[in-house]
Amino acid sequence: MENKLANFTGKIIFIGFGSIAKGVLPLFLRHLPVTPDRIRIVAADPDNEQIASHYGIPYQQISLTEENYRTVLEPLLEKGDFMVNLSVFVSSLALMELCREKGVLYIDTSIEPWEGGYTDTTSSASDRSNYALREAALEFGRKHPGGPTAIVCQGANPGMVSGFLKQALLNVAKDNGMNVKPATREEWALLAQQLNIRAIHVAERDTQTTPVRKKRNEFVNTWSIDGFIGEGLQPAELGWGTHEKHWPDDAGTHSFGCKAAIYLNQPGAATQVRSWTPMEGPYHGFLITHSESISIADYLTVRENGEVVYRPTVHYAYHPSDDAVLSVHELTGKNWQEQPVKRLMRDEIEEGVDELGVLLMGNAKGVYWYGSHLGIDEARKSAPYNNATTLQVAAGVLAGVIWAIRNPELGVIEPDDIDHETMIAVAQPYLGEIIGSYGQWTPLENRNWPFEEDIDPDDPFQFKNIRVN
Amino acid sequence: MENKLANFTGKIIFIGFGSIAKGVLPLFLRHLPVTPDRIRIVAADPDNEQIASHYGIPYQQISLTEENYRTVLEPLLEKGDFMVNLSVFVSSLALMELCREKGVLYIDTSIEPWEGGYTDTTSSASDRSNYALREAALEFGRKHPGGPTAIVCQGANPGMVSGFLKQALLNVAKDNGMNVKPATREEWALLAQQLNIRAIHVAERDTQTTPVRKKRNEFVNTWSIDGFIGEGLQPAELGWGTHEKHWPDDAGTHSFGCKAAIYLNQPGAATQVRSWTPMEGPYHGFLITHSESISIADYLTVRENGEVVYRPTVHYAYHPSDDAVLSVHELTGKNWQEQPVKRLMRDEIEEGVDELGVLLMGNAKGVYWYGSHLGIDEARKSAPYNNATTLQVAAGVLAGVIWAIRNPELGVIEPDDIDHETMIAVAQPYLGEIIGSYGQWTPLENRNWPFEEDIDPDDPFQFKNIRVN
Ligand SMILES: NC(=O)c1ccc[n+]([C@@H]2O[C@H](COP(=O)([O-])OP(=O)(O)OC[C@H]3O[C@@H](n4cnc5c(N)ncnc54)[C@H](O)[C@@H]3O)[C@@H](O)[C@H]2O)c1
Ligand SMILES: NC(=O)c1ccc[n+]([C@@H]2O[C@H](COP(=O)([O-])OP(=O)(O)OC[C@H]3O[C@@H](n4cnc5c(N)ncnc54)[C@H](O)[C@@H]3O)[C@@H](O)[C@H]2O)c1
Repeated sequence: MENKLANFTGKIIFIGFGSIAKGVLPLFLRHLPVTPDRIRIVAADPDNEQIASHYGIPYQQISLTEENYRTVLEPLLEKGDFMVNLSVFVSSLALMELCREKGVLYIDTSIEPWEGGYTDTTSSASDRSNYALREAALEFGRKHPGGPTAIVCQGANPGMVSGFLKQALLNVAKDNGMNVKPATREEWALLAQQLNIRAIHVAERDTQTTPVRKKRNEFVNTWSIDGFIGEGLQPAELGWGTHEKHWPDDAGTHSFGCKAAIYLNQPGAATQVRSWTPMEGPYHGFLITHSESISIADYLTVRENGEVVYRPTVHYAYHPSDDAVLSVHELTGKNWQEQPVKRLMRDEIEEGVDELGVLLMGNAKGVYWYGSHLGIDEARKSAPYNNATTLQVAAGVLAGVIWAIRNPELGVIEPDDIDHETMIAVAQPYLGEIIGSYGQWTPLENRNWPFEEDIDPDDPFQFKNIRVN
Repeated sequence: MENKLANFTGKIIFIGFGSIAKGVLPLFLRHLPVTPDRIRIVAADPDNEQIASHYGIPYQQISLTEENYRTVLEPLLEKGDFMVNLSVFVSSLALMELCREKGVLYIDTSIEPWEGGYTDTTSSASDRSNYALREAALEFGRKHPGGPTAIVCQGANPGMVSGFLKQALLNVAKDNGMNVKPATREEWALLAQQLNIRAIHVAERDTQTTPVRKKRNEFVNTWSIDGFIGEGLQPAELGWGTHEKHWPDDAGTHSFGCKAAIYLNQPGAATQVRSWTPMEGPYHGFLITHSESISIADYLTVRENGEVVYRPTVHYAYHPSDDAVLSVHELTGKNWQEQPVKRLMRDEIEEGVDELGVLLMGNAKGVYWYGSHLGIDEARKSAPYNNATTLQVAAGVLAGVIWAIRNPELGVIEPDDIDHETMIAVAQPYLGEIIGSYGQWTPLENRNWPFEEDIDPDDPFQFKNIRVN
């Protein structure tokens, strides 16, 4: 029992058994008191039987739809079970409702709509945003306070990065001579404000490569290709900070909800931003919409007399693996007509690191990056069926599941609601090196050459300076 | 003598001995009546001695500058010699002047300034454009009509593509039931107008790859890295057609010269456009400035009573090899701070094709691509020291040299001034398959999804519809 991190007597029901679920399963078997006979898998792939039966886990191959999901899942679910939703194309909200009815714990690494929801142009850009999906999940939580814990968006990012962020704020506070220990959302937000954090990126550089090069008409990625394309075609979204002086021409606001975020009227996969990581230095990454951009901005909002007086700008700046960059370039060049071939790289990866963390901008000490630096070799040593990317996600899922088992009656929660020390402590063995590093980079570095650019020279961390296109 | 294509009794003086010159040399030895003792090489590389001495060619290693070039070169040059300038960082105009004085024939695959000229921000964007470099060369020619032939910009592109263009116009004319044989610039321009050619791309897709992946901080390319970065940092330039209805916000015009082209106030390496080739289908390429964009637009201009009544929009749409795309992405992400390592791929190339041609847009039959489809295996079979890209260029240089030897008193000329049938006939053995292919693609294909875009729906081949960023 020494590795076991929580008491749990129910069943685990996996929905989806793709790159992440395959990576999560070995961690569950190691750290949860479950045996394969108390695990079920429901997923659409025809080719997962083998690995399921290798473990001795019952596997049901079916494509869940709005019409069939209750018929399929109800017989599987008993009070005290845990549903781990790692699928694509299945509505998170539908599953959450079902779990709540059945008294089943729930975790998800995102909040997904039914298939096609991300690009259903009969609904508005606002309606197909992560903002809207998050608001629907939160609304469901508000309607049913307490009850079986349902954690949304708890992987690496969204997920772990919300924990990294808090630790980063504490580290920067300490380096500024402040001795603080925020205990509430309000206190965390005040701390970010005091440290003058103006912008926060989830700054990721994935350098994993394989000797098998991306071919033409092939999308290659280190995690779900359907997932990446799906979120890449959603509107680019960002938490919108109070320091911003330049409203993007193509931005839209939402008429409902927390109002912490805005969206751009273009796909995230067509939106690049300037960012920085300790290993990579300056780079252009994709501003792909992610729930943490919204939840962190919301979490760190300071209000005085009901007025918002502080909020950082928050978004993703994703530099995926080189082959994924080429895949996006090809996809964009073909106006989003998906490549016929999709390849998830794992066992053929030869080298590389997934460098994933948060970049805090605005404090006088410089920009501060804090996160995980996980190499492929270490990932392989740590757990089977993983690459560096999936293991970071799996670690976040494990941390969330432990938190939910230990706190089974929290209702709907987000990563920001999870104690960051517990989150990091559980995940850490699978995150490689955890690094905190200052840099003197700003998005104004080496600008205005060899052409003058339309920048705000007086305020480096304006989104206007960060945005590329 | 059966392979020899022209009579020539002088010396060949190579300036620069990089990827192109190395590829050109074997073709010269095969098709010109020269022996190694009648060849000289002057170049800056320290590591070319070996290959020169393998051939038995005198090699002088020196970096030419504005200060030393006459001292170094004058002793080498005798009337009747041929200077083949395949260097970077050396002023083409300075060499042309010298050659004219000496009665030496001259060829260049571009028109280059002295080192730093492309990014000298003390001069205006207009002054560091290819437009300005071309005007200076043409002005020099006008001042010295006749005299030893000096061909500028005669490689593959610029170069061969001007020949492809004429053949493409003839092919499309024939498919439109027209039986024509234009004999003058004016007649070619009228034909383009009659065929309703609104836009012309030099549409290139290079798929050559090596098993040695691009590393971080490395720029990998199939031809000169210095050359690519140099032109990539010049303003994006395009011949500006009479059908254009939407003036780009960031465009500039020139106050001098032919007025056939405009520039954008941003580097070509940061400017992407939509284009199409038969092999690749739709893609995003870089609008890198090239002399042919200007010279072809100028060549195809129709004037009535001194007024311009017709001109196509002309520009490059370059999809370099995948590793070069990644190299540009990295370079852009670091705001043009050059990678410390540069790697020209040649012998390690495993597979791929350089698909290089012109795309004619506007005729009722559809878009028409015409050009060379040269695979790495065939390139290797055809000539040593080449990849597919350099061989296409070398073929163009060979064609230009043959033309100049046969026509030694033309003064300064451009590829558009060379008889296209001769040009193609000389080059053809080194161009792989020559392909002409129609497509129904337009830059409006699959647009407006999943977001509405600012397009001109009524006029597909507006530059506004073609430009990405
Ligand atoms: N938060 C994070 O850090 C993070 C990181 C990576 C992935 N994710 C998310 O995790 C999820 C899974 O990612 P992945 O890389 O494992 O994806 P994947 O594409 O590898 O696998 C998706 C799985 O969903 C299943 N599926 C598809 N349609 C289904 C349907 N209609 N019914 C049932 N199952 C269906 C597939 O069969 C497959 O098993 C995605 O939502 C992705 O966005 C989150
Ligand atoms: N028209 C076309 O189709 C086409 C295609 C490819 C390249 N080019 C042009 O051809 C030229 C050569 O390209 P490449 O790929 O061979 O380049 P490369 O970088 O491989 O070689 C450049 C050569 O120039 C020499 N050089 C550099 N500085 C010098 C100096 N100061 N004095 C003397 N020599 C100097 C180098 O030593 C080297 O031999 C470039 O101008 C390039 O733009 C044209």
